[in-house]
Amino acid sequence: MARVVTFGEVMLRLSTTGNRRFVQAESFEATYGGGEANVACSLANYGVDAAFVTKVPDSPLGQAAINHLRRYGVDTSHIQRGGERLGVYFLEPGVSQRPSNVVYDRGHASINEVEPGDFDWPLIFSGAEWFHFTGITPALGPRVAAVTLEATKVAKEMGLTVSCDLNYRSKLWSPEKARPTMTQLMDYVDVVIANEEDADQVFGIAAAASDVTRGMIDKDAYCQVACELVERFGLQMAAITLRESLSASENGWSALVWDGEACHHTRRYSIHIVDRVGGGDAFGGGLIYALLQGCSACDAAEFAAAASCLKHTIPGDFNHVNVSEVLNLVSGDGSGRVQR
Amino acid sequence: MARVVTFGEVMLRLSTTGNRRFVQAESFEATYGGGEANVACSLANYGVDAAFVTKVPDSPLGQAAINHLRRYGVDTSHIQRGGERLGVYFLEPGVSQRPSNVVYDRGHASINEVEPGDFDWPLIFSGAEWFHFTGITPALGPRVAAVTLEATKVAKEMGLTVSCDLNYRSKLWSPEKARPTMTQLMDYVDVVIANEEDADQVFGIAAAASDVTRGMIDKDAYCQVACELVERFGLQMAAITLRESLSASENGWSALVWDGEACHHTRRYSIHIVDRVGGGDAFGGGLIYALLQGCSACDAAEFAAAASCLKHTIPGDFNHVNVSEVLNLVSGDGSGRVQR
Amino acid sequence: MARVVTFGEVMLRLSTTGNRRFVQAESFEATYGGGEANVACSLANYGVDAAFVTKVPDSPLGQAAINHLRRYGVDTSHIQRGGERLGVYFLEPGVSQRPSNVVYDRGHASINEVEPGDFDWPLIFSGAEWFHFTGITPALGPRVAAVTLEATKVAKEMGLTVSCDLNYRSKLWSPEKARPTMTQLMDYVDVVIANEEDADQVFGIAAAASDVTRGMIDKDAYCQVACELVERFGLQMAAITLRESLSASENGWSALVWDGEACHHTRRYSIHIVDRVGGGDAFGGGLIYALLQGCSACDAAEFAAAASCLKHTIPGDFNHVNVSEVLNLVSGDGSGRVQR
Amino acid sequence: MARVVTFGEVMLRLSTTGNRRFVQAESFEATYGGGEANVACSLANYGVDAAFVTKVPDSPLGQAAINHLRRYGVDTSHIQRGGERLGVYFLEPGVSQRPSNVVYDRGHASINEVEPGDFDWPLIFSGAEWFHFTGITPALGPRVAAVTLEATKVAKEMGLTVSCDLNYRSKLWSPEKARPTMTQLMDYVDVVIANEEDADQVFGIAAAASDVTRGMIDKDAYCQVACELVERFGLQMAAITLRESLSASENGWSALVWDGEACHHTRRYSIHIVDRVGGGDAFGGGLIYALLQGCSACDAAEFAAAASCLKHTIPGDFNHVNVSEVLNLVSGDGSGRVQR
Amino acid sequence: MARVVTFGEVMLRLSTTGNRRFVQAESFEATYGGGEANVACSLANYGVDAAFVTKVPDSPLGQAAINHLRRYGVDTSHIQRGGERLGVYFLEPGVSQRPSNVVYDRGHASINEVEPGDFDWPLIFSGAEWFHFTGITPALGPRVAAVTLEATKVAKEMGLTVSCDLNYRSKLWSPEKARPTMTQLMDYVDVVIANEEDADQVFGIAAAASDVTRGMIDKDAYCQVACELVERFGLQMAAITLRESLSASENGWSALVWDGEACHHTRRYSIHIVDRVGGGDAFGGGLIYALLQGCSACDAAEFAAAASCLKHTIPGDFNHVNVSEVLNLVSGDGSGRVQR
Amino acid sequence: MARVVTFGEVMLRLSTTGNRRFVQAESFEATYGGGEANVACSLANYGVDAAFVTKVPDSPLGQAAINHLRRYGVDTSHIQRGGERLGVYFLEPGVSQRPSNVVYDRGHASINEVEPGDFDWPLIFSGAEWFHFTGITPALGPRVAAVTLEATKVAKEMGLTVSCDLNYRSKLWSPEKARPTMTQLMDYVDVVIANEEDADQVFGIAAAASDVTRGMIDKDAYCQVACELVERFGLQMAAITLRESLSASENGWSALVWDGEACHHTRRYSIHIVDRVGGGDAFGGGLIYALLQGCSACDAAEFAAAASCLKHTIPGDFNHVNVSEVLNLVSGDGSGRVQR
Repeated sequence: MARVVTFGEVMLRLSTTGNRRFVQAESFEATYGGGEANVACSLANYGVDAAFVTKVPDSPLGQAAINHLRRYGVDTSHIQRGGERLGVYFLEPGVSQRPSNVVYDRGHASINEVEPGDFDWPLIFSGAEWFHFTGITPALGPRVAAVTLEATKVAKEMGLTVSCDLNYRSKLWSPEKARPTMTQLMDYVDVVIANEEDADQVFGIAAAASDVTRGMIDKDAYCQVACELVERFGLQMAAITLRESLSASENGWSALVWDGEACHHTRRYSIHIVDRVGGGDAFGGGLIYALLQGCSACDAAEFAAAASCLKHTIPGDFNHVNVSEVLNLVSGDGSGRVQR
Repeated sequence: MARVVTFGEVMLRLSTTGNRRFVQAESFEATYGGGEANVACSLANYGVDAAFVTKVPDSPLGQAAINHLRRYGVDTSHIQRGGERLGVYFLEPGVSQRPSNVVYDRGHASINEVEPGDFDWPLIFSGAEWFHFTGITPALGPRVAAVTLEATKVAKEMGLTVSCDLNYRSKLWSPEKARPTMTQLMDYVDVVIANEEDADQVFGIAAAASDVTRGMIDKDAYCQVACELVERFGLQMAAITLRESLSASENGWSALVWDGEACHHTRRYSIHIVDRVGGGDAFGGGLIYALLQGCSACDAAEFAAAASCLKHTIPGDFNHVNVSEVLNLVSGDGSGRVQR
Repeated sequence: MARVVTFGEVMLRLSTTGNRRFVQAESFEATYGGGEANVACSLANYGVDAAFVTKVPDSPLGQAAINHLRRYGVDTSHIQRGGERLGVYFLEPGVSQRPSNVVYDRGHASINEVEPGDFDWPLIFSGAEWFHFTGITPALGPRVAAVTLEATKVAKEMGLTVSCDLNYRSKLWSPEKARPTMTQLMDYVDVVIANEEDADQVFGIAAAASDVTRGMIDKDAYCQVACELVERFGLQMAAITLRESLSASENGWSALVWDGEACHHTRRYSIHIVDRVGGGDAFGGGLIYALLQGCSACDAAEFAAAASCLKHTIPGDFNHVNVSEVLNLVSGDGSGRVQR
Repeated sequence: MARVVTFGEVMLRLSTTGNRRFVQAESFEATYGGGEANVACSLANYGVDAAFVTKVPDSPLGQAAINHLRRYGVDTSHIQRGGERLGVYFLEPGVSQRPSNVVYDRGHASINEVEPGDFDWPLIFSGAEWFHFTGITPALGPRVAAVTLEATKVAKEMGLTVSCDLNYRSKLWSPEKARPTMTQLMDYVDVVIANEEDADQVFGIAAAASDVTRGMIDKDAYCQVACELVERFGLQMAAITLRESLSASENGWSALVWDGEACHHTRRYSIHIVDRVGGGDAFGGGLIYALLQGCSACDAAEFAAAASCLKHTIPGDFNHVNVSEVLNLVSGDGSGRVQR
Repeated sequence: MARVVTFGEVMLRLSTTGNRRFVQAESFEATYGGGEANVACSLANYGVDAAFVTKVPDSPLGQAAINHLRRYGVDTSHIQRGGERLGVYFLEPGVSQRPSNVVYDRGHASINEVEPGDFDWPLIFSGAEWFHFTGITPALGPRVAAVTLEATKVAKEMGLTVSCDLNYRSKLWSPEKARPTMTQLMDYVDVVIANEEDADQVFGIAAAASDVTRGMIDKDAYCQVACELVERFGLQMAAITLRESLSASENGWSALVWDGEACHHTRRYSIHIVDRVGGGDAFGGGLIYALLQGCSACDAAEFAAAASCLKHTIPGDFNHVNVSEVLNLVSGDGSGRVQR
Repeated sequence: MARVVTFGEVMLRLSTTGNRRFVQAESFEATYGGGEANVACSLANYGVDAAFVTKVPDSPLGQAAINHLRRYGVDTSHIQRGGERLGVYFLEPGVSQRPSNVVYDRGHASINEVEPGDFDWPLIFSGAEWFHFTGITPALGPRVAAVTLEATKVAKEMGLTVSCDLNYRSKLWSPEKARPTMTQLMDYVDVVIANEEDADQVFGIAAAASDVTRGMIDKDAYCQVACELVERFGLQMAAITLRESLSASENGWSALVWDGEACHHTRRYSIHIVDRVGGGDAFGGGLIYALLQGCSACDAAEFAAAASCLKHTIPGDFNHVNVSEVLNLVSGDGSGRVQR
């Protein structure tokens, strides 16, 4: 069983129910999630020894966040406790022409108080094969960015494969701030994952001729983006997820991967959406798992796209699917027939 | 901030949950609504000083109805208390080929006990620019019809614009009873709103060649209907909403407006429905707001159609959207991408 | 009011809510169902005097199962009490590409303890016109199969029409075990119902050129299957339901019936699915009702297909629709317009 | 199995949850109940063939009311359909010093439209031993009172025992109106049940020295009341329930019965209340059952008091307990130890 | 209708349900509250024109907080929008020996960004008779304290009565920090409300011989505390609420008031607790209302104690009771008998 | 951090909500529990490295059971997968005079298929200090009893302290069957825990003069029982929990322990019950923890009694309290004051 480490923030997620808007809500469903935590959970479901590293407050809410991860098999033994508060995000899921709405309340979260030296990375990475983070983590602030860099360097030195999901968030930083930080981190990264907008926003590598708000996507243009990412940063591989936003209820979903030699387009899924938050993370988790299993870039991308497709049907940030369920979809059965 | 007054009934709405039929229901979700109350709420969300006038019983349920309106910013200070009971309607939302089912229990409601002279209309309309009612209100009974006529006359005398949504309800009155009452009211009306069936049922102004139960609609024929409404009653404008009922879950939705000179067809929305009750009222609220803002008939209809489209994604009678959300959809983004 | 008797197992059904997977579930919705119980409930809704015969434990859960049937008008007076436990099935409803998942926990249920002689079939069938069972019942075990055979023989002797829904369940028995048992029962059966896979699995009567996991169905091939069923077993009629599994959320649904002379294809419904469990039983209930009413095979199949279409929009195993609702859909109104 | 018939109104009961007040409610729990329906359900639970007679609207809500009764084994075959609406009552359960609050919305209910001749009482009473009604039924209006009198006379003629729970409701009629109607009915009544206030309000037979709002009750004074009831109306027996209202959460509960010769005080229960609506009806159901079993007045009162005590722990109007559970409490085990 | 203004923070309150601990919670009930908001709501329920002044973020959550107040009739027109976030508090209600647990997440809330000059106090206080704040508000930070002082001075100059509930919160400041700030504010205060610990913690005015964790309270000692508060700060009146914490489920509750001449002890209530948060604020609201009505200190304290007793039976921070309900309890009816 | 191992069954627990009876239930709350699993969870909450050993089916339900334990920090790495089904128990919580009702459906559960040799006990016990089981485990069947004996012997050989909670269940075996099995196991046991009935039922060691169904308990008699247990089986210590069942809502709760030299009675708690299932297991968990910490028998019993008292306020089988919360209650603060 391979060991993978991820580092980032875990937040309390509070979502309205029954398609209610925030002003109608009299209750919230509470789960926990965050980019790297979601990837760790995906991997744990696939049988990987996945550890998630973060800092949460020493409070019942911090404990509940840990328990949520532990419940799904994630190794939480390296999570630190302390700091002011647990980040929260409020989610109002969209339907049809009404988009999902997220209100972040993640300022002053405990993870912002980490400093280089806080985590014993050599110990944490001991026996590990892979380290994963997303662009959200360095965006949280200079201190978290410094720890991310620290971890990335140690991972690289210890021979781990390092992957990064660019995950640009305009509410956390500007492209101007993101670029130098992310560029520096790229020195240690082997595999990059991006959605149809990230590469442009972070590195200015844009695809021609797409309009993401109208659901039109030019696959060749994105192939070019992946290729450029690999070449500019000397990567092993770059994968780009392609979301066609037909409405908040229906999306087209596929991905492509450039492995330095060829570009593979995955099958395209037309998805009736239950919960699209964490869809990209489910892709990342699937990709890492499949690559660890020795799959080709092409097969890994298919596994990742199918895993991510299934995530869209599951409430919460986490992707609760196992390997055989993903493979069943990869092999072509999207019929949704009852399994009995 | 413009002031708009609406007059009608507010009912307790009890709807089953989880797609349950009435015979399966062990609980009901409770909200409050009614044609004119829904329009007032739309307007309050847009920042209009919207007052809703009605009569509710002097009971905790009457108070709860008032509180529900107050919560969303509607001026309830002219609502009278007394009478026998609060009207109730039971809703069983439909799915796919199964239609929504409404059981009205609105007989003997307090509003039926109003009489001319009960409301101080000159005071209520003081500072107001617009008065709105629907065809449901005079249909409740002769006394309510008389008060509606009274209000309409005062509104007209005081220079308010008067709008009426025809909203024919066969369970409340027959076409024979509706026609004279509605015709008399038309003398004071400037703007009429109707759906694809109302004008025919109330005034015998039918569109050719449509079959509303099969989702086929001939826009030109409805343009003719709007034109005839304007001409027959000397209106400023007539707007017709066009619902293509593909199933209880999926509708096509658009509108057209005749402003005396031209007929404008709005964009057509293909909607995945959460709750279609109040969809027409959301159109009315959007139209009044946009006209008060000085929009052209064309732009007002687009605003109203988009507002109404969004209403279909929100549970309850009320349309909880603000101006920027509507404008965002008008400007073309129906992609439902997460707003973060 | 005709009398129909059905015999089989009723189980406690525990389903997750809010599209949750089993590992996320903190609660289950509890209803009760089973093939023949579902048919009885359909018939009771249509005004038929429908009796369901089974054995449940003498416990509050057994009582709750009886009450659930009684609530919807099924005659439960011949249900026996005793035995070890009530069978349970856990349901995780699917969405989009994620299939529904059923975990059966029906071993050692009370019905497995029945023996020939336990039920007074002549009394139970007194005044009845029809007896119905499904292939699940004999699959439960040799003792239940023996009682099924006993009942079928008595029914036949007493002049009842006997119908059987093949309903092959691979978790209960193998095709090798199913074939002789079912073949023996066929001697007493007049009407057979099957889905697009049953006839092949039970009797080796396969349709050419269909791939059920891809939603492609060749109607002519299935017509041939129905014909062969009728001829091989000397049936009055064979009906085959045709599910096109586009996804767990969207299915095509139709049926065909061979009455010895001609094959009738019903209208095809494109269904947005709420709950597809019991969809086949709703077809069976509709078919039996319509045939009892004297409908032609063609009209009966249309009634059954429409009834079954509506079932897919209702949570739980039971089909809570009445005759006029079904006829309304048969007559072509699938527009889902609000009934008020 | 003895047969008992009860006649009265069944209402939809909508109660707030989680101790919420009406103005806080966003949903209501829906059950069905009414004095005589509650008694019928108690009796059905004890194995009695209990029929409930009423009139409900021909609507899904009327059907749901019937189904609710049918679920618990009540014979609903004599219920008539038609009329305007189903009565509703809204319940806000109290806690501690805050009393429960009931808002009745029962005006214009279908039962008010019954007339003498509507029900075939000789058929309904065929094979029955007992007829029961409460003072609420004649209070609903002159027509219902006339039908009650009609039923009572037929019952008496056919040799049934007739029982009446006085159940005075000040919102339905005044003492002045109640007295003559109830006095006339008393001619046909054998067993009267009353609470600590009824006899005074209806017949002016007051107990000395009690203050029901302070939880003080003088048993001897009530014994005198029971005795006077028996003598004035030539009854077989009069039972009086004694509620000591310590708070909305805690009540003392006992009863006494005068059988013409002696007064028996039952054991007193100190109850932690879940739902006290229907507590008196549970007493009535227990008393009738025990007397039908041939119990002495003393034993019957103990059975009835214990049954009623248990009702206070069960949500909804109905008393879901069986004979052995009641006998277990009668025999002294109020320890509430887990039954496993 | 008198006008009262209160100033403070409103927070989103997220509480676990079903007696769950935080680590068990999968959802939270969402309401809104805070000391001064709660008082404003009490007053609005009594018919007072109550305005609440605060600052909330310009977000859907800020809007929801405003709507929650507006729903219950509070004037929210002077609330400012802006700043970083809405304060949140998580509540885990206690039972029996397990105490309620509150996790505050109120740091960086918008109200902390207010500055003197932000609010137009003369306008806000125009027509008002009373200004109320609690010790929590100045404890939030120096800027809020400065605005509180500003408001208090203006209120005093404009002739309003000023009341302060000491409400010491050790998590917000130390006694050393609290004392000078609160002492300065006392110059403008007329009426002080305190619980059994506040006066000691803030001003070092301790009652002898009480142990609040064991439910023993010496009324005379607290009378002395009230007297000393009045004399030290030249108050009109000091009221002290006396909570006897028998367990998290059962409390004794009473109050005493010193009006400069005599000490009045109110009736003591033994309360079965639903929700004790806001109990003190309900006392404050009741006291202000009764004093505005011209009640004596003694009668006002009785009204306030009864109002507060009822609050303990209502979920959420707000006290949803009207004047007649409070007076009914004052007059002695704590029997909790059903009101029908 | 000490390591403790427990062995037994974990079941799916399905409980009704809102005080509903089984026949009223439309949903069940789902948690997981069982005597030894509950003890392991208690210990994990206290920071102990607690491992739970069992066998669950290789199904989503088996996985969910494991996840539930893992969520709360229990080491589940030695749990085996396979076998037929997961045991289920249905719980109907009692109130006041109505007892809780448990329907077990645990027959044929996977754990019944274990055999000696299945578990590598030397590996499992490596580094452990304590092994705990209850009398329920050997009662499940001869094979489970044999494995229990096997584990107990290995534990003893490896120097672990062995504890056993007698936990007699009459539905699983008779006293005649229990006695020899339990007597054999006693050879390896150091610490016995029993409730007020177990010792009598299993070993015939009865206390004089108690009537557990009336809430009367003679502490001296139970001290004698504990003493006899220690002497007969050469134990280190025997602890007896004493439940005074006043009603299903209110219990007295205390314990006594005999350590070979003296008998210590703990403080007695008067508990308002939320959920009493697992109360005894919480005592066991507390006792083991405190003894591992080196506490005296007296202090350990106090810790255990307080921990168990708190468990009664928490829904589900597990005791979600930490050490400081228990110590806070031990030190005397049962006031339930809000912790903020």
